[in-house]
Amino acid sequence: MQFTTTKDALVNAVNTVSKAVSGKTTLPILEGILFQVQDDEIFLMGTDMEIGIKTKLTGDIKREGKVVLSARLLSELVRKLPEDEVSFILNENNMTKITCLNSEFNIQGESGEDFPKLPEINGEKNTVIPKDLFRSMIKETVFAVAKNDNIPILTGELLEIEEGRIKLVALDGYRLALRQGKTEEGISLKEVIPERTLVELYRLLSLKNEDLKLSATVNQVLFTLGDTSMVSSLLQGDYINYKQIIPSNHTTRVKIRKDELQSSCERASLMARDGKNNLIKMNFSGNNLEIKSNSELGNLHENITMDMEGDPLKIAFNCNYFIDALKVISEDEIVLEFTTSVSPCILKPVEGDHFVYLILPVRYIEH
Amino acid sequence: MQFTTTKDALVNAVNTVSKAVSGKTTLPILEGILFQVQDDEIFLMGTDMEIGIKTKLTGDIKREGKVVLSARLLSELVRKLPEDEVSFILNENNMTKITCLNSEFNIQGESGEDFPKLPEINGEKNTVIPKDLFRSMIKETVFAVAKNDNIPILTGELLEIEEGRIKLVALDGYRLALRQGKTEEGISLKEVIPERTLVELYRLLSLKNEDLKLSATVNQVLFTLGDTSMVSSLLQGDYINYKQIIPSNHTTRVKIRKDELQSSCERASLMARDGKNNLIKMNFSGNNLEIKSNSELGNLHENITMDMEGDPLKIAFNCNYFIDALKVISEDEIVLEFTTSVSPCILKPVEGDHFVYLILPVRYIEH
Repeated sequence: MQFTTTKDALVNAVNTVSKAVSGKTTLPILEGILFQVQDDEIFLMGTDMEIGIKTKLTGDIKREGKVVLSARLLSELVRKLPEDEVSFILNENNMTKITCLNSEFNIQGESGEDFPKLPEINGEKNTVIPKDLFRSMIKETVFAVAKNDNIPILTGELLEIEEGRIKLVALDGYRLALRQGKTEEGISLKEVIPERTLVELYRLLSLKNEDLKLSATVNQVLFTLGDTSMVSSLLQGDYINYKQIIPSNHTTRVKIRKDELQSSCERASLMARDGKNNLIKMNFSGNNLEIKSNSELGNLHENITMDMEGDPLKIAFNCNYFIDALKVISEDEIVLEFTTSVSPCILKPVEGDHFVYLILPVRYIEH
Repeated sequence: MQFTTTKDALVNAVNTVSKAVSGKTTLPILEGILFQVQDDEIFLMGTDMEIGIKTKLTGDIKREGKVVLSARLLSELVRKLPEDEVSFILNENNMTKITCLNSEFNIQGESGEDFPKLPEINGEKNTVIPKDLFRSMIKETVFAVAKNDNIPILTGELLEIEEGRIKLVALDGYRLALRQGKTEEGISLKEVIPERTLVELYRLLSLKNEDLKLSATVNQVLFTLGDTSMVSSLLQGDYINYKQIIPSNHTTRVKIRKDELQSSCERASLMARDGKNNLIKMNFSGNNLEIKSNSELGNLHENITMDMEGDPLKIAFNCNYFIDALKVISEDEIVLEFTTSVSPCILKPVEGDHFVYLILPVRYIEH
């Protein structure tokens, strides 16, 4: 293996595939990045066996070959190289010489033959997903993925494509986050994607400008962004029927400024977190929302002006669930819908249906 | 106690004094900030009994009084308040009501009477120190303060003022950092200031624009920056006679570009840190410096062009000591001076004497 590339291209490629390299692995070769020069192309690859990322490196090829080099050493090293041409030469016993201006490194690599092959995916279901939309969808739902694996299927998000609509759903037993938008017609798909895959895909989407293509088999999915591709296993099993959980009726409907509600909840959380369950109480009455929280540290009252239709209501929540949802909503005004003080609360846009957040209340006890 | 101030003034004052509040204290009242309204002035104060910071808060005073409020709660709370007027009212049992627009907090405080008094310092030795110079002096020496307290006096820095020169010296048995400049004539002073005091003073100096005044007694020092003052105990005992350590002669003198030497050392450190002692070898010969390091991961060669007078030399160092010094030097070119491969190396400016770094070598073994 012998090739020349630039520092910048190398930094980008190493950063891209490093995301799939796990720090804690029992297979030492997985701590490395595979460099493979074949058929006039240079490829870098990293995997932790759950996800794998592969990217193309542009450069000037002299000789084919492959080697595995430590991801940790390489990512630090390439950042510290001078801005210039970098050349790689694979010598005997996987010793790899990297030179750049007056610097020469000899790194002990491992045999490229021992690196696991990424599965070749030619999915039956292929589609192009609007890139920026999907990036927002991940950001605005992923916080609601279950943090423990008591119910393994809830450690992922449901991706649903149907009749030109794309939906991403996360829920953890206390709350639900749903984000949807328009996509290509003519494909129907229902897959549960692990949280980590979505988090790494979000990072890739932030780096790359190409179209996002999806190709899915029964148990694997391949995302492609130009010269970079990411393959991931899918979670097996049926996702919870989330449509059943979202109430279709309400008896109280509130229109409120999102920023004010968020700031009040954040201040209330300072008191609430020292008490039990991060509890805050909300009292919707007339055109005023009163928020209260108290703990040993003291207590807090907030008043927010709002528009209300329907019955007045007293209800209590874990304020963190409100804050998590409000933080990712970009609308100035939102709508809250309630039925009773023990039924879920719905957060949605004033117009449209591009997001739905559902939050379960906790028992309201008068202070 | 009753007064009104603005959110911004409050955020600044709370941030300023919070620096002196320690997270881990056995005296709960020291986790708080003292608010004191007296003689038409509002003062905030924080202390961990080693250092104390006091600052004035501008505001509209209605009633005198004092209370201690949790520093942690307060610093988070004030940041989250709306940009508006904030009013404080001290009620019965040290309950303090803070209101801002439609938010009302009631915080359980502690009695201001129980807060320790900061010592009143009217030092015999008073001087004004050039603010920006002193800030640089701290930054460019503090890394060399001893990390363990085997020799307690080395956990601080020597501040020496004499004949219009101000010097700050740190050393830890493996290296020495000295930074000096011009200051007021007519005062002579030799004090050892604890590292933490210098670190917090550095932060204050970065925030404030006023002149820096120093007032010292035998065992305490008071730094004043406009409306903010910081008092600290001094380390007792004689500092090591650092002048004796700095060699006055050399047999090899090298002029080299600082950035190139720093980058090479940083790359070398990637290899060196997996070996013993972060060892790098330097070979000064002709007009070339060759840097080598090796470990199980591989090896590295760097070549840097330089100007040399005197004898060629092979010498080895812990590269971190070189990197620490090179990182804070702002000159483009520096001078290195050596005598033998087992004697200290001196780093100094090409012209002037505003800094001296001394680094002890480690034994050079041919590979």
